[in-house]
Amino acid sequence: MLELTSWLGAKYRFTTMSKARLFRVIPDGTVTSVPGISCSGVALGIKTGSNKKDFGLIVTDPPAVTAATFTTGAVKAAPVQVSQANLKASRGIAKAVVVNSGNANACTGVQGIADAKETAGLVALTLGCKDTQVLVCSTGRIGKPLPMPIIREGIHKAVAKLSPDAGLDFAYAIMTSDTRPKHTAVRLEVDGLPVTIGVCAKGAGMIEPNMATMLCFITTDVAIYRRTLQATLQEVVEHSFNRIIVDGDMSTNDTVLCLANGRAGNNPLCSYHPDLKRFKSALMYCCMEMAKAIVMDGERVTKCVEVAVKGATSSQQARLAARAIARSLLVKSSWYGNDPNWGRIMAALGNSGCKLKEELVDIYYDGLLAVKGGLASGAPISRLKKIVSKNSFRITINLHIGESEYTIYTTDLTAEYVNFNKSE
Amino acid sequence: MLELTSWLGAKYRFTTMSKARLFRVIPDGTVTSVPGISCSGVALGIKTGSNKKDFGLIVTDPPAVTAATFTTGAVKAAPVQVSQANLKASRGIAKAVVVNSGNANACTGVQGIADAKETAGLVALTLGCKDTQVLVCSTGRIGKPLPMPIIREGIHKAVAKLSPDAGLDFAYAIMTSDTRPKHTAVRLEVDGLPVTIGVCAKGAGMIEPNMATMLCFITTDVAIYRRTLQATLQEVVEHSFNRIIVDGDMSTNDTVLCLANGRAGNNPLCSYHPDLKRFKSALMYCCMEMAKAIVMDGERVTKCVEVAVKGATSSQQARLAARAIARSLLVKSSWYGNDPNWGRIMAALGNSGCKLKEELVDIYYDGLLAVKGGLASGAPISRLKKIVSKNSFRITINLHIGESEYTIYTTDLTAEYVNFNKSE
Repeated sequence: MLELTSWLGAKYRFTTMSKARLFRVIPDGTVTSVPGISCSGVALGIKTGSNKKDFGLIVTDPPAVTAATFTTGAVKAAPVQVSQANLKASRGIAKAVVVNSGNANACTGVQGIADAKETAGLVALTLGCKDTQVLVCSTGRIGKPLPMPIIREGIHKAVAKLSPDAGLDFAYAIMTSDTRPKHTAVRLEVDGLPVTIGVCAKGAGMIEPNMATMLCFITTDVAIYRRTLQATLQEVVEHSFNRIIVDGDMSTNDTVLCLANGRAGNNPLCSYHPDLKRFKSALMYCCMEMAKAIVMDGERVTKCVEVAVKGATSSQQARLAARAIARSLLVKSSWYGNDPNWGRIMAALGNSGCKLKEELVDIYYDGLLAVKGGLASGAPISRLKKIVSKNSFRITINLHIGESEYTIYTTDLTAEYVNFNKSE
Repeated sequence: MLELTSWLGAKYRFTTMSKARLFRVIPDGTVTSVPGISCSGVALGIKTGSNKKDFGLIVTDPPAVTAATFTTGAVKAAPVQVSQANLKASRGIAKAVVVNSGNANACTGVQGIADAKETAGLVALTLGCKDTQVLVCSTGRIGKPLPMPIIREGIHKAVAKLSPDAGLDFAYAIMTSDTRPKHTAVRLEVDGLPVTIGVCAKGAGMIEPNMATMLCFITTDVAIYRRTLQATLQEVVEHSFNRIIVDGDMSTNDTVLCLANGRAGNNPLCSYHPDLKRFKSALMYCCMEMAKAIVMDGERVTKCVEVAVKGATSSQQARLAARAIARSLLVKSSWYGNDPNWGRIMAALGNSGCKLKEELVDIYYDGLLAVKGGLASGAPISRLKKIVSKNSFRITINLHIGESEYTIYTTDLTAEYVNFNKSE
């Protein structure tokens, strides 16, 4: 398990702490910082009534070993279903990823599946690869069919614009209500050879109106076995994207793709390769940066809060408690109002289903003990208020009945959120 | 299982439908509509800075067979723990209930337990009964000790004011942020003898700032076995109070007490008594009235919504789906904005953990088919908008994979809710 002692300050610690000098951040890095990757981002008019970029391509040369994680919800958008099938059929080899914003192609039935397949097929035809080597992602409005005439024509435009410098164009093309593009890249050494990881994500905290929502694309030139890549990605996603909660609504389209084209020429990473840990740390950094960016870009959010539950009997138990707090409307509303309302945290804990003994519970606000053994600690309310008034702080709960812990990164709930989401 | 086909209109159907003429509603009925019950409600100053009533007593002559349900959370307020212990010690016989508002006596440790016990003991001393025959309830702020000097003195005042006409005083005394008192009473026949049920509740939809929250007191003169009363109460609570969600936050103090003093002189109700069903219907009516009143009094709420999930493989599965919808911030925000946003309902269903097949899901708004087989039905958006703009409507989801169903009564989420709850 990777240690990320200070999430909100992680960026600086990662690059300044000597033990963490496992990789360095590339300024303004994108997915095209990686050798062999070209990209494009174009405006086709899928986002109706705007001339914003809404269609993007990532192409890798050579085709890449690919790992993926998808929404675990029972309602899966068509592109999720098609990408899952293609990855299986191609045995995890991908040549390209095609993404549109402005339309989620979710709840669109067999037509949606046909449209996603056609899109992949047309891209494959233009690039000269197999259909199953093209992965498809969509984000935007639920329940409307894709505007296929626009997309059929647009594919040629997007292919024509492919460039090894267009990472930022791609980052813009996948945005919906995001206020800024989200991307970074890092460089590390594997077998003494330079390896790059580039990442690009979209998502404004799962809080978009009727939008379907979180996408992340990772490119790298490392050589790695498919099974190792999948296991590494899953572990990293579990500790990054799966630990952010804005409003507790998961999307029909959530997708993380990681394409490794092997250009670096290292001995392929496997579970016992000595540099796998280093690669994992670098990948973790990239995903945490994107997870942070998503939370911080949560519309109408005023605060980022780390909720760490310790001393639980298992990490599943700690997760129950952390999720209950991060999802409690009363707790989130109080943060919005700069109110250090630990009574609401106690109530949320009590209803979380997590095993606990009320008389053992300690609660800290940024290290200041507010609750000792289930009772008010006597910490001055003014000091607690000052902590909750900051735009980021940490709540640590120690249940003192076990050794396990779980941390979630979340936000406050604002009146502006409700007003923003009350209609399309 | 009792049928309540139209919750929001249930009041009228109950009293007008011939098959439902099992009981009649007593106009302005209260807990003191029941023979042998006297009450009081006085202002002691527990609610600081106001001269509102904040202390109440219910006394029954003779002592009553008592059933109860309490919060299932792991953090239980002191009065909940003391009442549970007293009920056990007295074998379910209660002489009195003492209630204060303005202070929840929750998260108050051993001092809280001692204070609740002392309160019960002083009431018992004044009334001349056993300590264990007095039940204690508190509602209000979490984490502060009870102002015992005020309460010690107040008990005599409350006992002096006991009257068989003070049901309304009691209803006022238990209010916190409720905007109106909540009470009713019904009369029915058991063994041809008149039987009365009176009920009084408090709770503004579990949405109070730092308040702990839902209390309900039921009195009746029916003669009934303790085990039968407990089973009946549990079934009724499961179908009424346990199916309302405002914000999904359960309280540390939730309590429902039912006192049956046997004055009616009927053959004691048991599981095979022919009039048990009638009694259950009447009790169900009383509890549904209180549950409705709590939802409708939810502060800053503009809409009451019935969410019915049908065609699930089990009622537990249907419950998962209904709860996910009733708890989704995105769904609740869209109701607030009069937005018939079925895409958000599909997404919430998908993430609920409930087994479903997307292509079989139908969604109705007040009987109008909006989603057919997982796809837009083509119903005019203007008609859907009109339905969601009403201050009460019904969402029915049919999963078409089983025979089970579950219904929840909930509200929208408003910007005013967040502003109201952002600080104490």
